[in-house]
Amino acid sequence: MQRERESEVSHRQAIWEMSTSISTSSPGTERNAFGWAARDADGGLSPFSFHVRANGEEDITLKILYCGICHTDLHIIKNDWGNARYPVVPGHEITGIVTAVGQNVQKFKIGDKAGVGYMVGSCNDCGNCKEGYENYCPNVIPTSNGIQQNGKTTYGGFADILVVNEAFAVNLPEKMPLDKTGPLLCAGVTVYTPMRRFGLNEPGKHLGVVGLGGLGHLAVKFGKALGLKVTVISTSSSKKKEAIERLGADSFLVSSDNDQMKAAMGSLDGIIDTVSAHHAITPLILLLKTYGKLVLVGGPNKPLELMAYSVVMGGKIVAGSLIGGIRDTQEMVNFAAEHNIAADVEVVPMDYVNTAFERLAKGDVRYRFVVDVANTLT
Amino acid sequence: MQRERESEVSHRQAIWEMSTSISTSSPGTERNAFGWAARDADGGLSPFSFHVRANGEEDITLKILYCGICHTDLHIIKNDWGNARYPVVPGHEITGIVTAVGQNVQKFKIGDKAGVGYMVGSCNDCGNCKEGYENYCPNVIPTSNGIQQNGKTTYGGFADILVVNEAFAVNLPEKMPLDKTGPLLCAGVTVYTPMRRFGLNEPGKHLGVVGLGGLGHLAVKFGKALGLKVTVISTSSSKKKEAIERLGADSFLVSSDNDQMKAAMGSLDGIIDTVSAHHAITPLILLLKTYGKLVLVGGPNKPLELMAYSVVMGGKIVAGSLIGGIRDTQEMVNFAAEHNIAADVEVVPMDYVNTAFERLAKGDVRYRFVVDVANTLT
Repeated sequence: MQRERESEVSHRQAIWEMSTSISTSSPGTERNAFGWAARDADGGLSPFSFHVRANGEEDITLKILYCGICHTDLHIIKNDWGNARYPVVPGHEITGIVTAVGQNVQKFKIGDKAGVGYMVGSCNDCGNCKEGYENYCPNVIPTSNGIQQNGKTTYGGFADILVVNEAFAVNLPEKMPLDKTGPLLCAGVTVYTPMRRFGLNEPGKHLGVVGLGGLGHLAVKFGKALGLKVTVISTSSSKKKEAIERLGADSFLVSSDNDQMKAAMGSLDGIIDTVSAHHAITPLILLLKTYGKLVLVGGPNKPLELMAYSVVMGGKIVAGSLIGGIRDTQEMVNFAAEHNIAADVEVVPMDYVNTAFERLAKGDVRYRFVVDVANTLT
Repeated sequence: MQRERESEVSHRQAIWEMSTSISTSSPGTERNAFGWAARDADGGLSPFSFHVRANGEEDITLKILYCGICHTDLHIIKNDWGNARYPVVPGHEITGIVTAVGQNVQKFKIGDKAGVGYMVGSCNDCGNCKEGYENYCPNVIPTSNGIQQNGKTTYGGFADILVVNEAFAVNLPEKMPLDKTGPLLCAGVTVYTPMRRFGLNEPGKHLGVVGLGGLGHLAVKFGKALGLKVTVISTSSSKKKEAIERLGADSFLVSSDNDQMKAAMGSLDGIIDTVSAHHAITPLILLLKTYGKLVLVGGPNKPLELMAYSVVMGGKIVAGSLIGGIRDTQEMVNFAAEHNIAADVEVVPMDYVNTAFERLAKGDVRYRFVVDVANTLT
């Protein structure tokens, strides 16, 4: 921990010096950039040189320090969704230091800590954008594997720099550790936003968290910081000790234990369900109180079985939620900073990324891989 | 119409005279009652004599004038849910005149119009009851085929009188036509309550109504009275003229027409889905705007297929809703009275009830059968 912070500080000094020249570079000049990219559906990443756009009037340039690895990255590099635009530079849980600011930039100054999550642009014109729900804009531009307004592909966080409109970057308070903050920008806001939207942020409420991975462990942390009672729900008891002793959950339910599930019926105000594999939701809905909410933030491909009676009796809700808007993300970051919430991460060097993806595919990580980009990118 | 109102008025005069003796009857005396009951799973109704409890201090006695026929009645008399307590006197869309009031009764006086819907009691002690959600009380006592606190079966509205705690009766404004008001007390509140809960009562919002039957036609009427744009969604165009010209819907979508459905994607703020048969909900969810709500008020027995992506993309909700609380019901009645909302009914005599149930099973009614109990009970 101490070493990581020192590394971060020394980096910032170097960037300060570097930034002076960058920030005064003439407008319109593309810059060379360097990262790691997947070239085909095998998904293996290797070094890749590319260009980033010149820093525009509303842009900031970020020297990337750390980038988390999200399951979505795995889907994209393997072309699971058939939309990969190779070469793909993955990564959308990005933290770094601002090294250049356009003349109209208001939120940032050079040297600031900043973060970028799942998206780097949207139409700014639709109803969703106007309401602050850029995440639901039909023309949202993902940070990685997206298509910019100029038609070029977006390259993500496994690279040395990122140029981004300041509207799509968030301020990271000085005290936040940048390695452990990256995962908040996707996984964190994904669980925090629905908790807030559905009133699952009121002290004393009882929250269930299904699945204890990158998203789930953060849901537990946010829940406890919000003053909730938190119950982790998992298919086996293997994570019970971890959930309660390390993450601070109040209780643990084994979903395969009918007696436990029956005894807990009607006890939860809401559930954040982070599971992406197919699973039964009726037993989860039965855990809810009247007007309780089951929020799906994972994306099982096969249809889930919804028994109408399970929601009709008790006026319950099954909702979906996708990351969060920029306003949500900044609010989440501020809350996390105030309550010292950070992801539990395994920091790995850039050349470990392929192994990390293999381990991620097997669920072998507690709870998020983060690549130490700036120190290990070669 | 004119004849129905006259019939109602003459009844009230007779009841006034009758009520004087009833209301002063000595406490603790059970009264003879008479109605029509199903005796077994064949479901055929025939005359049945029974007793009702003495009018208690918080009770009112209702001379039943009209009672609507709900699909739930059909399920119960046929023992579709395995819970029939024969003999079953069905009926829970009851309107009538108050003929006796207990000494602690505050909401009613003799001669008032009153209505009773799906329930005649609850525990009054649980969180749901305290919040005004008696409909979700685990010990709710249905008006028909329920078990009273004294262990006796409840007999419903196809009978001459009903004794009910005043807390479970609603005041019906003098101007309301009692034949057309009965169906509001179950079907009406079932569609009105979720419209209010989910913000689908704000003028200018766009509501979809799936299924144009007893519930659906009232959802259209409430929607229009609330100032909404209302689109009826149906499997065929056979009801289009009716929906638009007679009920006042703004537009009509044929769900089997892919082009129509595609063109309407993302256009609705919410949908009230009244269909009890198995059906696809993904095409309905895709009609919703960001944060849109699909509310199921029917109860298909087979599991519905819920694609996670359909709710995750757009932060959408699939909710269930079951009738409404007493407070909701009174509010709905007051709104209906103010806006002259009444059900479209086919008034039938008591001895037509078995034919009515047969026709209901085939969907052959526009839109609700109502039994003219007081004039035809023999």
